[in-house]
Amino acid sequence: MGASRARPDTPFMGPRTQDTRLWHPFSDMATVRDRELVITRGEDVWLWDEDGNRYLDAFASLWYTNIGHGRSEIADAVAAQMRELEAFTIFFDYANRPALELAELLAELSPMPGSRVMLTPGGGSEAIDTAVKMARRYWFEMGQPDRRHVVSRAHAYHGSNGIGTGIGGIDANRDGWGAALPETSRVGHDSVEALEGEIARVGADRIAAFVCEPVMGAGGVHPPPPGYIEGVAALCRAHDILFVCDSVICGFGRLGTWFGIERWNVEPDVITFAKGVTSGYLPLGGVLFGARVCEPFWSEPGRMVRHGYTFAGHPACCTAALANIAVIDREGLLDRALEIERDLTAVLRPLEDHPAVAEVRSGTGAMAAVELVEEGGAPGLMMRMRAAGVLVRASSPTAVAVCPPLTITREQVDTIGEAFAHSLGA
Amino acid sequence: MGASRARPDTPFMGPRTQDTRLWHPFSDMATVRDRELVITRGEDVWLWDEDGNRYLDAFASLWYTNIGHGRSEIADAVAAQMRELEAFTIFFDYANRPALELAELLAELSPMPGSRVMLTPGGGSEAIDTAVKMARRYWFEMGQPDRRHVVSRAHAYHGSNGIGTGIGGIDANRDGWGAALPETSRVGHDSVEALEGEIARVGADRIAAFVCEPVMGAGGVHPPPPGYIEGVAALCRAHDILFVCDSVICGFGRLGTWFGIERWNVEPDVITFAKGVTSGYLPLGGVLFGARVCEPFWSEPGRMVRHGYTFAGHPACCTAALANIAVIDREGLLDRALEIERDLTAVLRPLEDHPAVAEVRSGTGAMAAVELVEEGGAPGLMMRMRAAGVLVRASSPTAVAVCPPLTITREQVDTIGEAFAHSLGA
Repeated sequence: MGASRARPDTPFMGPRTQDTRLWHPFSDMATVRDRELVITRGEDVWLWDEDGNRYLDAFASLWYTNIGHGRSEIADAVAAQMRELEAFTIFFDYANRPALELAELLAELSPMPGSRVMLTPGGGSEAIDTAVKMARRYWFEMGQPDRRHVVSRAHAYHGSNGIGTGIGGIDANRDGWGAALPETSRVGHDSVEALEGEIARVGADRIAAFVCEPVMGAGGVHPPPPGYIEGVAALCRAHDILFVCDSVICGFGRLGTWFGIERWNVEPDVITFAKGVTSGYLPLGGVLFGARVCEPFWSEPGRMVRHGYTFAGHPACCTAALANIAVIDREGLLDRALEIERDLTAVLRPLEDHPAVAEVRSGTGAMAAVELVEEGGAPGLMMRMRAAGVLVRASSPTAVAVCPPLTITREQVDTIGEAFAHSLGA
Repeated sequence: MGASRARPDTPFMGPRTQDTRLWHPFSDMATVRDRELVITRGEDVWLWDEDGNRYLDAFASLWYTNIGHGRSEIADAVAAQMRELEAFTIFFDYANRPALELAELLAELSPMPGSRVMLTPGGGSEAIDTAVKMARRYWFEMGQPDRRHVVSRAHAYHGSNGIGTGIGGIDANRDGWGAALPETSRVGHDSVEALEGEIARVGADRIAAFVCEPVMGAGGVHPPPPGYIEGVAALCRAHDILFVCDSVICGFGRLGTWFGIERWNVEPDVITFAKGVTSGYLPLGGVLFGARVCEPFWSEPGRMVRHGYTFAGHPACCTAALANIAVIDREGLLDRALEIERDLTAVLRPLEDHPAVAEVRSGTGAMAAVELVEEGGAPGLMMRMRAAGVLVRASSPTAVAVCPPLTITREQVDTIGEAFAHSLGA
């Protein structure tokens, strides 16, 4: 286990620092402003802070460090590309080799034959806003402009941009930002009937798309009930609704496949991805569109899509993605994820015997959550685990998420289990 | 001047390529799909394509290559950071030195004393969605939850995410994406009275923010009329409306100052930035909030802002920004921009004598636009200039924008002028 941490000031947060100018995401700055934990180095599953304390990164930074930290081959590839061509736009007809190769590779790996790729510059947020805009645009171009409504799921997290905020299913993330986004609604996250009812209520001919994570990630690691994914996919097919699979967390090995959704026998129309596509070495995300969605835009001149991002197809970021995918492939990390899936279940499920634990969710991919009985207990548990040298993420007031790099060993999974047992107390 | 290009197939676009899998932004893919122009190398103001043709990059890729292409010192700094710590989240209390240093530096450089910085991972799109969400959130926290309306300007471009699309002022970019974003409206881009009228119509106590580029960029390079910036800033101040300055294009030297807005004697409440902050070497953007907006969130615990992006504060991207700002500072590129401003005016204004030219807009920063008489003439002019070895951007059907790296020489500005004269024809 990582070095335990002695904090004379507070056992939970970093030592007092200078009053920061950095406004942290998803943070209470009045609390964090002068006590940040400064991370300085990473190697495989390990991280070090400025005081030399070592931590096991058991949430892959933020669901993304799939190949582990500190791979110098990615840095070398990126630097070589930057020396040749650091960046140039891919708007209009401009292109660069790394962007072209990445698009080709992703289309090949995707479970949607004939798909095309829009690349986005950051995380999943831009991918989601892109996917929803394009789903509506598809129907507009197909002569069904009334198909604009977008259905998503309770507890879902789809990023922080305007549309992602509007279709998000975590209520606390939706308050105080202005009026709700029109033409959207949410349904229960685990019920095919709930979607069926919503389609009847709104009218299928007004619905553009249904947005669905294979395993719900930031909302607390909720694997779908048996039959759920097949059920909602069949409903979408029957009612001609685009099935948008949000693979931002589930992709690039997390569920043992390239896009996560391949675990079920369904074919989505649109797939969003980010995070694991570069393992976070550089920011990059994107959207895959199946042949059906591409058709009107790619077959007949005159349908220019006035959408996209300055840094889409950034050569250095695409190079990082190509190098990362090569590592996943070479080291067999898709298969390794399935072993980690079993290891996490074997190690964490016994925690269900602890009186503080309501439930352990695992078994679909290299991710898990420990749900606590106590309302608001998750942040405290996260901090006690940090003090024990293991970094996890409170993904709700009651749930602590585990999502390790796909290079983690069984022994290191045991370390996570020990830190939970220790931090949950007697 | 760059090598002229012989294209047996078509004089305007790249040679026929393989049918691409890459869906280009702002493109008509039925036209572009098998004829991309693949750029392979960059050095200062020069770019080369795969066939070895050389071009002068007269639009700084997409308003961002402020320090010019191919600076190996940025690649070296990025690679060194990636080898140490390629990425780790800054959610909650986590931080890293490059993010902290960049926030500190940007706050120091900003014209808003006591400001704090939210970093975003891509271009300006995330910065805009963040700024508008936070403007509304500010009023929500201040006990004025009815202040949600956001006023922006006709012809303005504020990115491709949900909110940026919703407040955008270019009509062609707003069609086919679903219902308009509620609680927003647009006013004439050059009229203080138009804003005054809109405030009266909507009611000041319902308006959260006014969003304004110092010089309107993607909308066609429109410098503000004399008194405009001071006038709208005074209106915002009088009616307690947050003045959001969108410096995505105007920042980091483009107008001869760090954030562009310093050219006028006003103090904004919020500044968005991106592009030039890294000169595009890696994707990064962000939002500066003045002391007033920070106050409720930074003074009293309990106001967690549930917003932010996975790759905010990415160590490698922040390192690129720090290295880029060091180059701008060391080489005096802020001052150089003012010389380029004069050079562009001297070289391009005489084009107003050409019968095809309606107007040349220049004189506020190292950017200019040539407005054509012929509706729809801009793409053709852009292509003829490409054939002559100079890359510019059609920023509307009638306007061609010029926005060179801030390292461009007077002789190279002359080259741009010659390419215009040649391409406009006799």
